[in-house]
Amino acid sequence: MEPSSGWDGPTFQPLVVLELASNTPQEAVAWLLSRIRDGQQNGGAELLVEQLSPGAADGGEKDNPNLFVVGASWQRLLCGAEDCGLFKEYSDGSMRGFTCANQHRFKGFTGAGDDFLSMAECQYIIKHQLEALRAKDETHVPGYSQAKLYPGKSIIRRLQSKGILVQMFPLHDKEELKRLSFSWYRTVRLSLQPLDAIRRYFGEGQALYFGFLEYFTIALLPMAVLGVPYYLFDWENYDKYVLFAVFNLVWCTVLLEVWKRYSATLAYCWGTLSRKKAFEEPRPGFHGVLGLNPVTGRKEPVFPSVSRQLRIYLVSLPFVLLCLYLSLYVMMIYFQLEGWALSVYDEDPTLWTEVLTYIPSIVYAVVIEAVNLLYRYAAEFLTEWENHRRESSYQNHLVLKVLVFNFFNCFASLFYIAFVMQDMLLLRQSLATLLITSQVLNQLMEAFLPYWLQRRRNKKMIRKVLRRRAIEEKELPLAEQVRLEADMSTYLGTFDDYLELFLLFGYVSLFSCIYPLAAVLVVLNNITEVYSDAFKMCKLFKRPFADPAGSIGVWQLAFETISVIAVVTNCALIGMSPQVKAYFPESATQLILWTVAVEHLLLGFKFILAFLIPDVPKHIRVKLAQIEFESLEALKKKVKHLLVVFKLHRKGSEA
Amino acid sequence: MEPSSGWDGPTFQPLVVLELASNTPQEAVAWLLSRIRDGQQNGGAELLVEQLSPGAADGGEKDNPNLFVVGASWQRLLCGAEDCGLFKEYSDGSMRGFTCANQHRFKGFTGAGDDFLSMAECQYIIKHQLEALRAKDETHVPGYSQAKLYPGKSIIRRLQSKGILVQMFPLHDKEELKRLSFSWYRTVRLSLQPLDAIRRYFGEGQALYFGFLEYFTIALLPMAVLGVPYYLFDWENYDKYVLFAVFNLVWCTVLLEVWKRYSATLAYCWGTLSRKKAFEEPRPGFHGVLGLNPVTGRKEPVFPSVSRQLRIYLVSLPFVLLCLYLSLYVMMIYFQLEGWALSVYDEDPTLWTEVLTYIPSIVYAVVIEAVNLLYRYAAEFLTEWENHRRESSYQNHLVLKVLVFNFFNCFASLFYIAFVMQDMLLLRQSLATLLITSQVLNQLMEAFLPYWLQRRRNKKMIRKVLRRRAIEEKELPLAEQVRLEADMSTYLGTFDDYLELFLLFGYVSLFSCIYPLAAVLVVLNNITEVYSDAFKMCKLFKRPFADPAGSIGVWQLAFETISVIAVVTNCALIGMSPQVKAYFPESATQLILWTVAVEHLLLGFKFILAFLIPDVPKHIRVKLAQIEFESLEALKKKVKHLLVVFKLHRKGSEA
Repeated sequence: MEPSSGWDGPTFQPLVVLELASNTPQEAVAWLLSRIRDGQQNGGAELLVEQLSPGAADGGEKDNPNLFVVGASWQRLLCGAEDCGLFKEYSDGSMRGFTCANQHRFKGFTGAGDDFLSMAECQYIIKHQLEALRAKDETHVPGYSQAKLYPGKSIIRRLQSKGILVQMFPLHDKEELKRLSFSWYRTVRLSLQPLDAIRRYFGEGQALYFGFLEYFTIALLPMAVLGVPYYLFDWENYDKYVLFAVFNLVWCTVLLEVWKRYSATLAYCWGTLSRKKAFEEPRPGFHGVLGLNPVTGRKEPVFPSVSRQLRIYLVSLPFVLLCLYLSLYVMMIYFQLEGWALSVYDEDPTLWTEVLTYIPSIVYAVVIEAVNLLYRYAAEFLTEWENHRRESSYQNHLVLKVLVFNFFNCFASLFYIAFVMQDMLLLRQSLATLLITSQVLNQLMEAFLPYWLQRRRNKKMIRKVLRRRAIEEKELPLAEQVRLEADMSTYLGTFDDYLELFLLFGYVSLFSCIYPLAAVLVVLNNITEVYSDAFKMCKLFKRPFADPAGSIGVWQLAFETISVIAVVTNCALIGMSPQVKAYFPESATQLILWTVAVEHLLLGFKFILAFLIPDVPKHIRVKLAQIEFESLEALKKKVKHLLVVFKLHRKGSEA
Repeated sequence: MEPSSGWDGPTFQPLVVLELASNTPQEAVAWLLSRIRDGQQNGGAELLVEQLSPGAADGGEKDNPNLFVVGASWQRLLCGAEDCGLFKEYSDGSMRGFTCANQHRFKGFTGAGDDFLSMAECQYIIKHQLEALRAKDETHVPGYSQAKLYPGKSIIRRLQSKGILVQMFPLHDKEELKRLSFSWYRTVRLSLQPLDAIRRYFGEGQALYFGFLEYFTIALLPMAVLGVPYYLFDWENYDKYVLFAVFNLVWCTVLLEVWKRYSATLAYCWGTLSRKKAFEEPRPGFHGVLGLNPVTGRKEPVFPSVSRQLRIYLVSLPFVLLCLYLSLYVMMIYFQLEGWALSVYDEDPTLWTEVLTYIPSIVYAVVIEAVNLLYRYAAEFLTEWENHRRESSYQNHLVLKVLVFNFFNCFASLFYIAFVMQDMLLLRQSLATLLITSQVLNQLMEAFLPYWLQRRRNKKMIRKVLRRRAIEEKELPLAEQVRLEADMSTYLGTFDDYLELFLLFGYVSLFSCIYPLAAVLVVLNNITEVYSDAFKMCKLFKRPFADPAGSIGVWQLAFETISVIAVVTNCALIGMSPQVKAYFPESATQLILWTVAVEHLLLGFKFILAFLIPDVPKHIRVKLAQIEFESLEALKKKVKHLLVVFKLHRKGSEA
């Protein structure tokens, strides 16, 4: 945490890096710096900012000179923490919104320079303060007549949307990162992940993801343990899966309800459970005619929601439906290929033709992954074009589009095999192929590809650094470290990670009773996933800004939806099992009616269960109620007290 | 509103009446009065209270002398309004929590004595202040050593639970009541109910009930209009009901979603939508060992929630299940009787035996009503015994118990006829009998019985009054008016009214496609219901305290549950219709599978629809966000401003 040696750098601890386009005119830079440094009473951000020493021109390649490090004084950070509504642990063990007035009553607060605020929190505060830096009477960014400003517009957002601000990222902390990576993934041990340390370094959103990954893996263990003997002893005797399916049903429901409570506990301890979201700014890509925001009364771009609805229902929705249709079409081609390969094998059963029978499944699995990727870009483009005002609304629409398609694309063939073809052997084989192929592809795409790209880039950079100066100390000087990090890939959030878990959850809960080994595969995948995700977070990516998430958000809903669908598929699979069919030898109608009745009962039971189990554990509800009660009482008292003191004071000064 | 003439009564406007037991010792009365009158700085309620002049002893019967009327000064009521968190319309048209500091910026506030606070609001404020009157260092109520008190215990609650305070009720306002009843039910017109006036007089909970009743009736009109031709032209041709059932499905879903939005709009205009509930006191019947409330840190009775859970799951749940079983048993007896009556009719088809075939249905309908009533008492007893701390929790458990049983009791026979016997003709006949009988019984029980009782009692009272003094003016003197009202029945809340609507909604949405006239009957019933409910509210009952409800609460959930079940029953009825069966002449299995698939799609669609339609209309969401934003901004500014002013002041006084 000490200021880096080697370069007579800034006198403050650098926290966040701003990179402006290399051709930014000097007047724009000077204006931005003055606004950042200006006192808060003048509408500035009152932060410390310094330009990084320019790298020497180096063989035709020239370093961008417009790199700035931003920091802040200790007092400023505390004020910022109050502004953001940061929650910290109070002296009585509860979590409360930090206020400067009560600072000494918070646990761990000892005075200037202590570890009261983690580096990630400081960086989040600085980001928040930079984004809250608003235009006063400027009509445009100096030097950029087309970059319009109006009073109240966030300067940073405008610079981002115009490409003047290339990127803004927090700096890694080498020491802490080393400690974290050792306790996290550098040693292979049988222990849980250091969630608190992850949260301290990467923020709550990341920590919740890793918490969920770990929870999911542990929750899968019983299924995996149950699955192995099924696989070993009853490989062909698949009418035993009734018990497994029943277990599956109970497991899914309980799993998600318990997670909700566990995640609430985590979020409470991290202070994000009851933290109120500040009023959301328009997202950087949002555009529209300048108008009045009805809520804030401030001037900002306005886009009629009717236009947005039209875009959603007349363009996006038909597009998604078209994609679903195409995906069905591809699936039918796959089945034709599969049939052709089988017929070839039947005609001439050699090793080669046996291998051939596996080819269509593998090709289909690869095609699914490729189509998912392509669709992802289309979905992003469309959602961007829908022009959502708030980031959360954008995210929800994107997630919805991607989820529906991915679910359809990955599972349609399995549904077709299970319920139209009713071929359990083929279902098992397809499930295995899909699961294994997608896992292998994912691990490749996710960790090794970026790792390889990174190595190439880093090598170049390190070579450059080496060439420029002989390395005296082991640590890179700050300027080089910043340039190295600026060059790293940007972590794009937990979306893809959750999506992968979502699909795995689908494979396990929808059909795993057919292929009990699925849970084992997913557990193995998750364990490598923890390591590869941890590795890429620590080594491959720029440090992301902390995201003060209180839950896994829309993903909880997505997983719950899967678990409802799982009730339906599992009931249907049970109804189709020879074991159950044997109970209704004379009447298929009776069998179906009973299956449907049981399914409805289970669904009803599931909803009642979800309704009965409180989402937040009792001890946390009590604590939350306690704080609310106290703050109500305190407010009543404070108002009365202030008035009394004020009156006394006035009397005193009048006397 | 003027102080009554005839008796030199209180000098303030009497709002609320307290009736203590007639044998209350004088010291207890004196203590209570002094606590009520005492200033707030001494922990009193600072209200005005006066004893009513005792009625003359009258032929052996003696009036209770311990009747007190309570009022308050204008300033005290305003303070109380702030205490309760009352919402009023602000000068900019939004609804805001009233504060005395900003009183002049609220619409309609002109100064002392105006109509800014309605009488119902004043009465609510007084009730709130009385209930917030807490024991200081008293260990028991003077004169009652067994009525224990501890610091912080609500005095009124203790007096209630010990039977010392017999009742506390707000006074009617003869003038306003006359105006209200004329615009409400005294003239038969084609117009909507005066919801705002109802809310002004009876409070938000009542107004929401009447709003829902009206909304439900209007929403039924299209079904009733559609139903008449079905009934007139296709009486025996009941395979036409497919269209009707489809209409039914869409109608149920849309109906409830639109109501949610409408009720949010009403609640916003009445200021109860965003009003925060104050911390809930334990309900009067709650008892336990004295301990510390973990939330408030105050001393109060504590009852371990494990004991409560045990009582719920080991006693209440088995009891409910037993009752359900008994209800099934009664149903089977009914079917046996029905069969016997039919066989008698078949043997000897005369007019008398034809009448006999209707007897079992009617008897069964009467038995159902009687059993529902009996069960109701049992449910109340059990829920009381479960010892819930909060009124809301008590209500939820009671509603759940009663709803499950009533639903089962009323609809089990219909389900049995529809899906086990598959006799559509009998289903229609049973539905008609149940519906008509229960409506007739309900109207009798609800309006005419209490009316008759009331008349008998009132006549006695009025005779007494007449005997005692010759009536000079038309208006009764206050003391007699109070005694008359004290003698009226107490209105027990909207529970039974909602329950009735719930069952009607069930008849209409679950099976009405079989008996299209059901909607017509329910519409007719609802219209008379409006009049009889309005009549009983205005004439038969004591005025109830206003209940600042923001929605119809748990009933919304109950109605939504019915609408989900309606999807299932209607799909099944469609699947069983000869029309649809004709499409699958060769395979019953195919038919069932298709029906189930369509049902699942409809259920999915329903949930998506419920998810997509926002519960609160946009313009109200904007207003709420606006206020939240402003209050955040204002808080920031106020804290800074106060600090600055304070510093300046200190400097000034130091200089």
